[in-house]
Amino acid sequence: MKNLYGRRLRAAGAGPCEPTRLNDAYTRAGVDIDAGNEAVQRYKTIAAQWRHPAQIDALGGFGGLFEMPGDPLRALAASTDGVGTKVLIAAELRRYETVGADLVNHCVNDILVVNADPLFFLDYLAVGKLDPKSAAQIVSGVHAACRNNNCALLGGETAEMPDLYAAEDFDLAGTIVGSVQIADLPKPETVQPLDAIIGLPSVGLHTNGYTLARKLIPAAEWSRPFDGGSFADALLAEHPSYHDAVRAIAAAAQIKAMAHITGGGLLENVPRTLPPNAKAIFEQSRWRVPALIEELCKRGNLSDEERYRVFNMGLGFTVVVPLSDAERAKAALPGARIVGWVEERREGEPAVIIHPARA
Amino acid sequence: MKNLYGRRLRAAGAGPCEPTRLNDAYTRAGVDIDAGNEAVQRYKTIAAQWRHPAQIDALGGFGGLFEMPGDPLRALAASTDGVGTKVLIAAELRRYETVGADLVNHCVNDILVVNADPLFFLDYLAVGKLDPKSAAQIVSGVHAACRNNNCALLGGETAEMPDLYAAEDFDLAGTIVGSVQIADLPKPETVQPLDAIIGLPSVGLHTNGYTLARKLIPAAEWSRPFDGGSFADALLAEHPSYHDAVRAIAAAAQIKAMAHITGGGLLENVPRTLPPNAKAIFEQSRWRVPALIEELCKRGNLSDEERYRVFNMGLGFTVVVPLSDAERAKAALPGARIVGWVEERREGEPAVIIHPARA
Repeated sequence: MKNLYGRRLRAAGAGPCEPTRLNDAYTRAGVDIDAGNEAVQRYKTIAAQWRHPAQIDALGGFGGLFEMPGDPLRALAASTDGVGTKVLIAAELRRYETVGADLVNHCVNDILVVNADPLFFLDYLAVGKLDPKSAAQIVSGVHAACRNNNCALLGGETAEMPDLYAAEDFDLAGTIVGSVQIADLPKPETVQPLDAIIGLPSVGLHTNGYTLARKLIPAAEWSRPFDGGSFADALLAEHPSYHDAVRAIAAAAQIKAMAHITGGGLLENVPRTLPPNAKAIFEQSRWRVPALIEELCKRGNLSDEERYRVFNMGLGFTVVVPLSDAERAKAALPGARIVGWVEERREGEPAVIIHPARA
Repeated sequence: MKNLYGRRLRAAGAGPCEPTRLNDAYTRAGVDIDAGNEAVQRYKTIAAQWRHPAQIDALGGFGGLFEMPGDPLRALAASTDGVGTKVLIAAELRRYETVGADLVNHCVNDILVVNADPLFFLDYLAVGKLDPKSAAQIVSGVHAACRNNNCALLGGETAEMPDLYAAEDFDLAGTIVGSVQIADLPKPETVQPLDAIIGLPSVGLHTNGYTLARKLIPAAEWSRPFDGGSFADALLAEHPSYHDAVRAIAAAAQIKAMAHITGGGLLENVPRTLPPNAKAIFEQSRWRVPALIEELCKRGNLSDEERYRVFNMGLGFTVVVPLSDAERAKAALPGARIVGWVEERREGEPAVIIHPARA
């Protein structure tokens, strides 16, 4: 669960986050959410010591923003991310083709939150023992995903570090840089009660929750049939790019705020781009939870709190639009659903309320 | 030795490289140079399949170049790199302050080769078990080095992955983005016989050669006195930024080409920014080899070929200037030396010839 503290240099102006409560299931799996939150606090103190004058407050901290040199009307947006322990499943199964798309699409979505279009990408591949064929399969996936997002693969680094990684293991991270017109930055301050929340469906875990998922579905089961394929297929389903979906919605509706639902789930990601006086209400009956996530919740006996913090629960990206635009936004895109709305948030109230669907 | 194939998407226009011969010492240490070269070839094939129209041929591939959106006179330069297994020494000694500077300065130097000034940086920190205090020390070092290079720390990712990394281990990588006026890009095609090569001194291994170094100087010796400090001090000496040094030279002399001496040493890095008909001649008597590197060469009984490929041998950055500017360039910077010159290269000749100093 790499992202709970990933966007750690959250700029001022981000919506308030609930204090993260200790997640029992995740702690048992070896990921310490309290330590993550402490690290974030320490990072904030460091970042406050000096700030480059050309840094722009980034909405919710999904991607950083920087003034475009020589052009006051534009900004560069950038984000670094990794694939998390999904790489361990790919390594175990020797299926190297899809993690590149996971990585690139994740990064594309991160800067899409500030409405940026991708310019270029660089990858970092670290391996225990370099197998040129597997490495090329991974990089080929990165390159193909870059091409699909009209994004240059501008460079990268492959590091062979036999004493840091086990022979078959690898880690994969990357950095995207995009551009956005300042006038096109979302305006979360315009979010108001009755605005609609459009949800874009997820296809599975995307790139979050894998440390827990690998505990709940051990490797011995991965080849077993599940949901029309195998557990392996479900676990390695590609994190999609929501770029074209968001562009389609933008052509039909005014977009006020967006969120990429990564580590921390709806509970932590949606508030990052909402004003402090707004809360988001979700009706889970309005969308489908992927079979893999249902299975994991059942096996882990996860509470509502846990499942909505660890997994995306079926929504990969959310878009806030005025109520009057909601039907048009939904119609612009097959698969999009109106999944919730905005209400006024009073002091002490949570920033997100989810009404679970009951069978 | 992460960088031998790191700049793997070398653009057309790069100088020719010698075929890398198998490095015995390094292979014994677990790093496979042949596999690295095969991976580079495979990456090139992938990159050739599609190229974004705004990509610009990058000189020598130290950093990638991309047209600045909306400004035909400028380009963005970017590079991703890691600290390599120097992190294992930092982790073992629990000295987390300096690896951030290693990382940032390495990246600054990579885009300095195309004359770019830093804009912003993003880091990727992966840990086995997150200790917020150590993580903050690492990020604090990254932040301080960014500040020293007038570079925003725009974001980053901290990933806790207990099943991929041992509890105490971490990996650290980062991405820099800078800008350069197209007119200020170095012009290696102007390099000609009798041009002088200015060398900027290294302070030790910088960020290359650590997998071998850790084999030759085991952890049990790190606390022992060496060269006025300890082996630990020498091993963790910070990779310097050559940004200000190069700016000082540029104010005094015409710069035709530059190279950042990383993995592959003088033998592989200098030719990357030379035209195919030029060879570089170095006189090692003209500069000092750091004591740590002398010690490693002695312990490993490394051949001349090996030592000049694995280590920087005392030069961290090289600058090619016209002979008429050489003295001015040298005088502009304390520590700079005229370390060699350019000769015409005939077919079949190596691109670099080094005359070792004999005691």
